[in-house]
Amino acid sequence: RSSYGITLLPGDGIGPEVVDVAKDVLFVAGAKEGVELRFQEMLMGGAALDAVGVPLPDETLAAARASDGILLGAIGGYKWDNNEKHLKPETGLLDIRSGLGVFANLRPVTVFPQLVDASPLKKEVAEGVDIMVVRELTGGIYFGKPRGFGSNDKGEETGFNTEIYSVSEIDRIARVAFEVARKRGGKLCSVDKANVLEASMLWRKRVTAIASEFPDVELSHMFVDNAAMQLVRNPKQFDTIVTNNIFGDILSDEASMITGSIGMLSSASVGESGPGLFEPIHGSAPDIAGQDKANPLATILSAAMLLKYGLGVENAAKRIETAVTQTLDNGFRTGDIYSPGTTLVGCKRMGKEVLKAL
Amino acid sequence: RSSYGITLLPGDGIGPEVVDVAKDVLFVAGAKEGVELRFQEMLMGGAALDAVGVPLPDETLAAARASDGILLGAIGGYKWDNNEKHLKPETGLLDIRSGLGVFANLRPVTVFPQLVDASPLKKEVAEGVDIMVVRELTGGIYFGKPRGFGSNDKGEETGFNTEIYSVSEIDRIARVAFEVARKRGGKLCSVDKANVLEASMLWRKRVTAIASEFPDVELSHMFVDNAAMQLVRNPKQFDTIVTNNIFGDILSDEASMITGSIGMLSSASVGESGPGLFEPIHGSAPDIAGQDKANPLATILSAAMLLKYGLGVENAAKRIETAVTQTLDNGFRTGDIYSPGTTLVGCKRMGKEVLKAL
Ligand SMILES: CC(C)[C@H](C(=O)O)[C@@H](O)C(=O)O
Ligand SMILES: CC(C)[C@H](C(=O)O)[C@@H](O)C(=O)O
Repeated sequence: RSSYGITLLPGDGIGPEVVDVAKDVLFVAGAKEGVELRFQEMLMGGAALDAVGVPLPDETLAAARASDGILLGAIGGYKWDNNEKHLKPETGLLDIRSGLGVFANLRPVTVFPQLVDASPLKKEVAEGVDIMVVRELTGGIYFGKPRGFGSNDKGEETGFNTEIYSVSEIDRIARVAFEVARKRGGKLCSVDKANVLEASMLWRKRVTAIASEFPDVELSHMFVDNAAMQLVRNPKQFDTIVTNNIFGDILSDEASMITGSIGMLSSASVGESGPGLFEPIHGSAPDIAGQDKANPLATILSAAMLLKYGLGVENAAKRIETAVTQTLDNGFRTGDIYSPGTTLVGCKRMGKEVLKAL
Repeated sequence: RSSYGITLLPGDGIGPEVVDVAKDVLFVAGAKEGVELRFQEMLMGGAALDAVGVPLPDETLAAARASDGILLGAIGGYKWDNNEKHLKPETGLLDIRSGLGVFANLRPVTVFPQLVDASPLKKEVAEGVDIMVVRELTGGIYFGKPRGFGSNDKGEETGFNTEIYSVSEIDRIARVAFEVARKRGGKLCSVDKANVLEASMLWRKRVTAIASEFPDVELSHMFVDNAAMQLVRNPKQFDTIVTNNIFGDILSDEASMITGSIGMLSSASVGESGPGLFEPIHGSAPDIAGQDKANPLATILSAAMLLKYGLGVENAAKRIETAVTQTLDNGFRTGDIYSPGTTLVGCKRMGKEVLKAL
């Protein structure tokens, strides 16, 4: 096949700006490999709330499901922060993840050599960091039931959630992580809290069991508190990390910050079948929205992940990655990664430079 | 009163060595302020497992309860890592926290000016960091029920835990945190995941309500994933942090690592009444146990917290803190904080130097 339908979900804040730029890059990179891409833009997040009153309209989910890959900008903003749960932009995001069944969230954490000075870590600690965080995305405490508000035996109000994993949920994310580790450095670190939580004890037991299918991958286990420390102390010790939904949320954000270039980091969420969801890991940055200041590179690199993990057009993905490297080498920087001696550009111009490099 | 009974729980690994040294410092600092301290040593953790088959013997809990303050070394080690849950050293730790009702865990995260170069963060990011993490310690997912193993509707095994907080549990930890913030920089940041979890929504609502009792403290809220990033990006933005049990476990360990001197960090766990539990935040370090290599300063500073928060003898606490600063200024360092140009010493010698400075 050489023609694919892509759903674009620009979302909120800087989302529309970065998706707009990334779309062009995606189109051109595809074309250069003989792949035709058709785009359909749909509403999601705050934009959908404002337009039709729900954060994930049925038509959006249906269109996403029927397409070959989804590129999401960012969702959320102050405006909707105090909304009730079912009217939060975030709820739309959780619903589309769950609706698409994209249980595996891959987050590459890479320190770009050109940007190593932007890391809050010392150069010798940060340089060369190259981690893949594999986060379970459709289970655990994010979706576990029962959840809600109740009252305890003293008649006091309570708020509660359930952290729960089943064998098959753990096995499938473990297999994805082992596959990823196998194609990378061959080392997988599974992060849990098995010294306290039963959900983690089952996690550790199953990950250990699945390891026998991957004798070529070296498996280790680490408690989440220790992992949070080790990521700061010596991030280079990690190759691939696999962990549950909530620990993955925390650790992948922590890890992304050690790179100093969160505006550069992409992510892929994939399931067993069906289209994947690709998005930058940064948020909607409402404070700089509409000012042509956003860094589109994370979304452009997410488009590359869409080509690679979503459509299997690895060569087109490589083209984008090379073009991004080239653009950085050429000295172009948006505000978030600017340093003296480089050329400060806006979102659109950055996109043009990547296109030129393509 | 000028005579107090202190329970010593040396525990495992380097625990006995550091408690031994800290005990002498504690005794002398008390004496200098006219306070007599009596010590009783009890079994806990792996040491208790080996001697009597349980990680927290009833006599230990009873003695601790009957005393005026508890100084704990560290617990755990490879030897007991694969034990069943009720035979894990960690279970003893959770049981004593719960048995004493010490719901508020205070963890100062301080970058010592003499040690700033040991931080993995750049000097300008690390220097001057002075945060107090207030972690809820006897609730949340650590203790919530139901918990255990079950099977789902497909007949598959599951592991599950319950994250649950009641109004009174949140209110009391919030009050402690506001009090702490009031005596520090007057800024409190409450960390939760209220965009996803009901338990966090109630947390945010109650912390916000309690804020009205502390009009002089500036309250802000942050999502846990963002907090994990901000601690790396710019830790100086934080004064006092309050959060739940599991987020506190992760964030306080992350924060401690940014100081680069985890062997220097102490903690206090206190309740509404009854004795407090004081312990270094580092672990039992079985690899260097019994070699007189451990850094006793974290335990010595925990003894200072015992004097201040446990017995209210602030002057004696100040004496210890000053003696530790002086000892660092005199250039003495254990292996974990050693740098060229300073004097490498062992655990005992470090204790002697602090005593000299006292
Ligand atoms: C916005 C929020 C619900 C989401 C999450 O917690 O999963 C975000 O933090 C992320 O990591 O994609
Ligand atoms: C040993 C473990 C049970 C404990 C915890 O998770 O509370 C430790 O990590 C801590 O922070 O004191």
